[in-house]
Amino acid sequence: MPVRLVDSLASTEPLAEIFSDRSILQAMLDFEVALARAESRLGIIPQAAVEAIAAAANPDAFDLAVLSRSTLRAGTPSIPLAKTLIDLVRSKDAAAAGFVHYGATSQDVSDTALILLLKRAQPLIESDLLCAEEGLRKLSEQHQSTTMLGRTLLQAAPPITLGLKAASWLAALNRGRKRLTESFAEALVLQFGGAVGTLAAIGDKGPMVAQGLADELGLICPDAPWHTNRDRLATLVCACGVLAGSMGKIARDVSLLMQNEVGEASEPESSGRGGSSTMPHKRNPTGCAVTLAAATRVPGLVASYLSAMVQEHERAVGGWHSEWPTVTAAVQATGVAAASIAEIAEGLSVDSARMGENLTATGGTIYAEKAMILLTAKLGRDKAHQLLEEAARNAVTQHRQLVEVLGEMPEVTKHLNPAAIKQLAVAEDYLGSAEIFRLQQLQATLSPKNPAEKKD
Amino acid sequence: MPVRLVDSLASTEPLAEIFSDRSILQAMLDFEVALARAESRLGIIPQAAVEAIAAAANPDAFDLAVLSRSTLRAGTPSIPLAKTLIDLVRSKDAAAAGFVHYGATSQDVSDTALILLLKRAQPLIESDLLCAEEGLRKLSEQHQSTTMLGRTLLQAAPPITLGLKAASWLAALNRGRKRLTESFAEALVLQFGGAVGTLAAIGDKGPMVAQGLADELGLICPDAPWHTNRDRLATLVCACGVLAGSMGKIARDVSLLMQNEVGEASEPESSGRGGSSTMPHKRNPTGCAVTLAAATRVPGLVASYLSAMVQEHERAVGGWHSEWPTVTAAVQATGVAAASIAEIAEGLSVDSARMGENLTATGGTIYAEKAMILLTAKLGRDKAHQLLEEAARNAVTQHRQLVEVLGEMPEVTKHLNPAAIKQLAVAEDYLGSAEIFRLQQLQATLSPKNPAEKKD
Amino acid sequence: MPVRLVDSLASTEPLAEIFSDRSILQAMLDFEVALARAESRLGIIPQAAVEAIAAAANPDAFDLAVLSRSTLRAGTPSIPLAKTLIDLVRSKDAAAAGFVHYGATSQDVSDTALILLLKRAQPLIESDLLCAEEGLRKLSEQHQSTTMLGRTLLQAAPPITLGLKAASWLAALNRGRKRLTESFAEALVLQFGGAVGTLAAIGDKGPMVAQGLADELGLICPDAPWHTNRDRLATLVCACGVLAGSMGKIARDVSLLMQNEVGEASEPESSGRGGSSTMPHKRNPTGCAVTLAAATRVPGLVASYLSAMVQEHERAVGGWHSEWPTVTAAVQATGVAAASIAEIAEGLSVDSARMGENLTATGGTIYAEKAMILLTAKLGRDKAHQLLEEAARNAVTQHRQLVEVLGEMPEVTKHLNPAAIKQLAVAEDYLGSAEIFRLQQLQATLSPKNPAEKKD
Amino acid sequence: MPVRLVDSLASTEPLAEIFSDRSILQAMLDFEVALARAESRLGIIPQAAVEAIAAAANPDAFDLAVLSRSTLRAGTPSIPLAKTLIDLVRSKDAAAAGFVHYGATSQDVSDTALILLLKRAQPLIESDLLCAEEGLRKLSEQHQSTTMLGRTLLQAAPPITLGLKAASWLAALNRGRKRLTESFAEALVLQFGGAVGTLAAIGDKGPMVAQGLADELGLICPDAPWHTNRDRLATLVCACGVLAGSMGKIARDVSLLMQNEVGEASEPESSGRGGSSTMPHKRNPTGCAVTLAAATRVPGLVASYLSAMVQEHERAVGGWHSEWPTVTAAVQATGVAAASIAEIAEGLSVDSARMGENLTATGGTIYAEKAMILLTAKLGRDKAHQLLEEAARNAVTQHRQLVEVLGEMPEVTKHLNPAAIKQLAVAEDYLGSAEIFRLQQLQATLSPKNPAEKKD
Repeated sequence: MPVRLVDSLASTEPLAEIFSDRSILQAMLDFEVALARAESRLGIIPQAAVEAIAAAANPDAFDLAVLSRSTLRAGTPSIPLAKTLIDLVRSKDAAAAGFVHYGATSQDVSDTALILLLKRAQPLIESDLLCAEEGLRKLSEQHQSTTMLGRTLLQAAPPITLGLKAASWLAALNRGRKRLTESFAEALVLQFGGAVGTLAAIGDKGPMVAQGLADELGLICPDAPWHTNRDRLATLVCACGVLAGSMGKIARDVSLLMQNEVGEASEPESSGRGGSSTMPHKRNPTGCAVTLAAATRVPGLVASYLSAMVQEHERAVGGWHSEWPTVTAAVQATGVAAASIAEIAEGLSVDSARMGENLTATGGTIYAEKAMILLTAKLGRDKAHQLLEEAARNAVTQHRQLVEVLGEMPEVTKHLNPAAIKQLAVAEDYLGSAEIFRLQQLQATLSPKNPAEKKD
Repeated sequence: MPVRLVDSLASTEPLAEIFSDRSILQAMLDFEVALARAESRLGIIPQAAVEAIAAAANPDAFDLAVLSRSTLRAGTPSIPLAKTLIDLVRSKDAAAAGFVHYGATSQDVSDTALILLLKRAQPLIESDLLCAEEGLRKLSEQHQSTTMLGRTLLQAAPPITLGLKAASWLAALNRGRKRLTESFAEALVLQFGGAVGTLAAIGDKGPMVAQGLADELGLICPDAPWHTNRDRLATLVCACGVLAGSMGKIARDVSLLMQNEVGEASEPESSGRGGSSTMPHKRNPTGCAVTLAAATRVPGLVASYLSAMVQEHERAVGGWHSEWPTVTAAVQATGVAAASIAEIAEGLSVDSARMGENLTATGGTIYAEKAMILLTAKLGRDKAHQLLEEAARNAVTQHRQLVEVLGEMPEVTKHLNPAAIKQLAVAEDYLGSAEIFRLQQLQATLSPKNPAEKKD
Repeated sequence: MPVRLVDSLASTEPLAEIFSDRSILQAMLDFEVALARAESRLGIIPQAAVEAIAAAANPDAFDLAVLSRSTLRAGTPSIPLAKTLIDLVRSKDAAAAGFVHYGATSQDVSDTALILLLKRAQPLIESDLLCAEEGLRKLSEQHQSTTMLGRTLLQAAPPITLGLKAASWLAALNRGRKRLTESFAEALVLQFGGAVGTLAAIGDKGPMVAQGLADELGLICPDAPWHTNRDRLATLVCACGVLAGSMGKIARDVSLLMQNEVGEASEPESSGRGGSSTMPHKRNPTGCAVTLAAATRVPGLVASYLSAMVQEHERAVGGWHSEWPTVTAAVQATGVAAASIAEIAEGLSVDSARMGENLTATGGTIYAEKAMILLTAKLGRDKAHQLLEEAARNAVTQHRQLVEVLGEMPEVTKHLNPAAIKQLAVAEDYLGSAEIFRLQQLQATLSPKNPAEKKD
Repeated sequence: MPVRLVDSLASTEPLAEIFSDRSILQAMLDFEVALARAESRLGIIPQAAVEAIAAAANPDAFDLAVLSRSTLRAGTPSIPLAKTLIDLVRSKDAAAAGFVHYGATSQDVSDTALILLLKRAQPLIESDLLCAEEGLRKLSEQHQSTTMLGRTLLQAAPPITLGLKAASWLAALNRGRKRLTESFAEALVLQFGGAVGTLAAIGDKGPMVAQGLADELGLICPDAPWHTNRDRLATLVCACGVLAGSMGKIARDVSLLMQNEVGEASEPESSGRGGSSTMPHKRNPTGCAVTLAAATRVPGLVASYLSAMVQEHERAVGGWHSEWPTVTAAVQATGVAAASIAEIAEGLSVDSARMGENLTATGGTIYAEKAMILLTAKLGRDKAHQLLEEAARNAVTQHRQLVEVLGEMPEVTKHLNPAAIKQLAVAEDYLGSAEIFRLQQLQATLSPKNPAEKKD
């Protein structure tokens, strides 16, 4: 099932399939059949009814167009679904019709169907995130010594390594994935409460049916129905929002590095990717664009979901009804971004020579901080500052390297020998703790929990 | 084309059809054919090419699944679309293939296609809004004298008329529709700029082709291409946001009036609507739920759109790519809310007897303000206040009407005769300027522009 | 320090004090002094410099107005702060001036100052949340058997207990507080990276200084600087968003119960609270209003924060600069809501008699589901349905109780004896698993982690 | 009054002053005095009371800390304000105390005070926007022929002129300002409705008092009170959102042009601005950062405001209470962005030589489209495409200019003479309609209304 054109940059095919009409219908029918099974095992409904219900619960017997239209009138798809299912069962086994959807409410069906679909989406997204992490880990290892400009406010700053940069991308992505996994674990629970969350229609067997139903569906059975307590799903949507932000940061960085004027990296080539027919070398940051699109959209979706949490009493008017398009869009956007970042992380082309050229092109003013430290130790801050300011101004106006200018200033050469001055402009010599911070971030990704929580 | 299940409370069928794959494809092909026509009329491309292009631009010849997949790789549907169209043309007329999409860029196709679809959506939404306005106008006229509780912070307050309430709903809706119409008028303009917004590929004929293309498509030709200036579309999305808020307010009010404990109004009955099979009298506020769902979702969509406005240089990385799902969702949500409000406005059941009962049930404390004014004039504020406080306390604790209690207080009866005291509890006698404000709001809806702008 | 009028419903005094100018200044100075201490202990700067810096780091010596103005020009408060601090130190000890802010960058100061202030905010908010939980626990225990209407889509539905309702409020609040605590634990880490996150200016001693600085400030030292990786703070802001939503749900429910027409509960009386001078009995849902205001605002703040996560390279242009007003507003809004909910939870007035009256006022149609189950077992679904539909219609049109009508229907009395029919309308008899779900939710609050994660 | 540190990048001093405690207090007192004057003129309250009220309405007599604290308990500042004012009046003239706040409700005071403050903010913001427009107009005129790279998806594309780029910035800003002005005109109306919007307490004189009060305050008197119809304010907040987006686009572009690797423009130097003491040439994009911070934050604020529009009946629980921090933050953020953009627009340093160098550095591949057009006319599309693809590949791999490579290809030189080939790489020769689109956009800014609406 291809993604609709309108969403073609906003989902992947497997995720779009999961939230397709057919798939939603199947999940709702799965609920109804599993409910019948659980209830029959507890003697609440007859075994014969289960067979009739399971036989009738065939998606092909449902007219999706009718179901969609009826949904708008009924306010939820589960009402017309149950009605049709009852009709189908009745046509074969009139007695069984009374046991369809027994003790459940429409929200039980819709909410649990959503949970079942989210459960199918989880491994798809996590798998792409793991690929992305693996790609970034390799990138970081491979470029642990590749020096490049640090850039603050988009201005040249002292050097870093690409290894450190990739490790920072990785660490944020890794934390985000662990949070996502936790929030899936918390959210993927059965909803089953009957009309008002008491399961009154099945007497005192509520918890037993709930557990049996959860087992049938492979879901965890929570402490209680959560019809108007949406905090678990909200936390999942928020985890998507945080991940989208972290992925957007990577994509922004990569797209900036891909500028012709910077030219330090580019997205992998792939068929149909970016490119222009007459400019065959051109590689557009298409994966970055898709990822940044997600990072742009998802925050608003998170806001929509959080706004919907104020749900009245035992079933909301509106808040609940707003959720499906929001949750599914947030999850799919996160998924297509994860797929894009995976592809970028695994195949990023790096031009380390260009990185060196860009370092040199700054004229060495990025090392002024380093020179300042050395000279302050010899001359005091104020004198050192005055000298540096003069040297930097001359370097800029004369288009020369800062170290050359410094090498001609007597007050500098009095304290620093030519080798020391030359050393000032060696990027590898001004990386501080870059490698330690790189390693520590890689290390942190190996722990099962996010680092700052380790003491818990 | 039915609405997808996942969006089944978030769109109407006609709106869903407009943003369907087939419809988007058609709109993009319409652009390509219109471009060829406009260019051939100006002698830029040969007439023969137009015929070949028009013949090839048949949606049935396109594989939507392939188009969707290619879009994710290309970053925009127009690149694979143009490629396929060129192939189709070439297979019939090799020479004509060079004139497909001539001088245009992919964004021209996608943006203008979106505009063409929005143009089709406009009358659908406006027509429902007009129905809603007409319904509210009738409601306001019919109930100009129907008194009901005013409610502040959900607490009983002095009376209003349903006529005034409906007129206030109407006035906000009417202002919102006028703003929507204005923003459609501003936004429905051609996008045609070529690679970077200069139309360099067609030499000095850019503006002429643009005008011809706009004429072909029935769009206004703007002062310049707007590839990275999205303020017009943003204003349209905002107008949807404001309208969704105003409609949400109506739906909230109606759903509150529909509570069993209030029982003053209910949504019209309609087949498949709300209701429970075993509780035949029950009418769920389904239309309110759909409308409140829109009012819950659209603010986040507006935020997503506004966030996307920060678009780089001559074509954005990500901001632009995020727009389609956001714009189309906002417009469809506004549309399904408008349809729901129209239905509610046209068919609202009003229980004016119950309105009267609810007024009485307050024990008359809602008239304390009125009594205070009368007594202040006689006794001064402090004394009046002290008497009222005592009377109100007694009325509440003794479950009696405030006027009865007042009628037994000598300090009150000294100044107010029994008739005056009894009159205190007549709702119709404490409506102030309700009718004037009702009429003025109805009047304001008749002006072509929003009231406060009338002097412009 | 009182809250500013413009924020007077959006913060508490203690939280407003934490984010006041003086407090921010102090936190930034704390950073500078702690840095000097940590560096001197490692022999990086002389001990004498520490004393000079600590002496100069007196908030009274700073002109807050000048600092604020300079911030807008510098783009961050830490630049003018460091400049002034250097001047103050120099005026006493010229040599020491070179060791102020040594090796740090402005973002280290601002970010860590924010973290220090958030650390002070945490116990304030958590303490109010714990009070709220305690209040709700008591409420749930006290009303474990108090029956009241369940309400779905604001319509009467089968009964629940107030005990269950309060337990559901509690469980969501408890989960939200645990998530908040976790996200504080994750976010409250030192930021210290120097110009580009390598701490190059302090050679190979970066991690040691970082650890020493963290120890001085009572913060955890993370695996690496996080200047452009904002996911930990984002998760904290999201946790505020989820909590605000759960608190908004409680406030919405309470405000609905407080409607005169419902009258089942009201906020506690307190001086200056709600109320009208002439309507002394009136209690406005002021705490609900403040809480709902937070639930309305915070989702947009979350979106603003998530949008800001896309931060360029080693320091962002804009994203970072947007954060302070967003984070501090989200935390304060959550705090004032927590304080309001605590007050409501601890002092909610419950009118259980009115709850009973509202149950009765439904005419028993809320028990139709129950009757349906009984009759289906005897007559089959279709016959049962037909009988119930007739009975319900008659009950509604004749303003009688459903059980009375049923008791006169021969087809019903043939299968159900009068006692059984009468029992149909006993709320206590149709509570299903309400008590079990209540207990399970109370139990879940006692576990250290959120329930669904227990297996981890 | 300096901006608070926490907001120091989020407001300007004059705007911060407008929304300060003192200023809010003054505006509320202005309302109370104006109300007394209007009512006394109509004989509703005695003239003596006006004098007593005006005398008491002295901000110095109010304790702002007490007022703030009472606001949280009362749910609105106007309740404690009126109470204090009554006490102050009573202490001088007991009789007059009964005429304070006569017939008004607390929301009348708060809402109208907000409107009065917004009215003071309007000219400040518009004046900065006009300066920004004037700066951009000059920039556009001055650089009408300055060629520079067009950039799509941050990749090199055919040339544009800086004049066109500046004109596009200007046109969007100009449209945004006109919309802002319109939305101010619509929103700056009196709120005066009494308890429930009927002005019942002043009998049939409501509209007359309203008009008199509006005249006193210099506001327009609307058709009716708008206590729970917030669409006019919502439209104003949205106009801020759209403007923030358009300004963010300018700031993003400028910050990208300021990258060292691009170096085509930089923000004006100004004292305390950006810069580093040891890197004297460095100019940080501080104004861009402040503007982008606004563009990042405001969309979420718009969402918060729109979410708040769903206001219950005659006064909301929560929605209304959430508004002040949102509206004032959105307006101030827009204002500080406008001030920043004005400064950038008026003082942008342009390096047109560098623009030329960056054009050349592309190796001419940006002219491949142009060459394709010429060759297609001679050779047909497919052959032309094949030649260009080969030439472009060679140019890139051999680091040569595309035109050089083309000049050596016989199939090209057969059809194009050397002069024609050389001309291919002349930027000025491939600007298409850049100048016309520049002029048309400048022209459009001169019309009173936004262009697409001109026919209205």
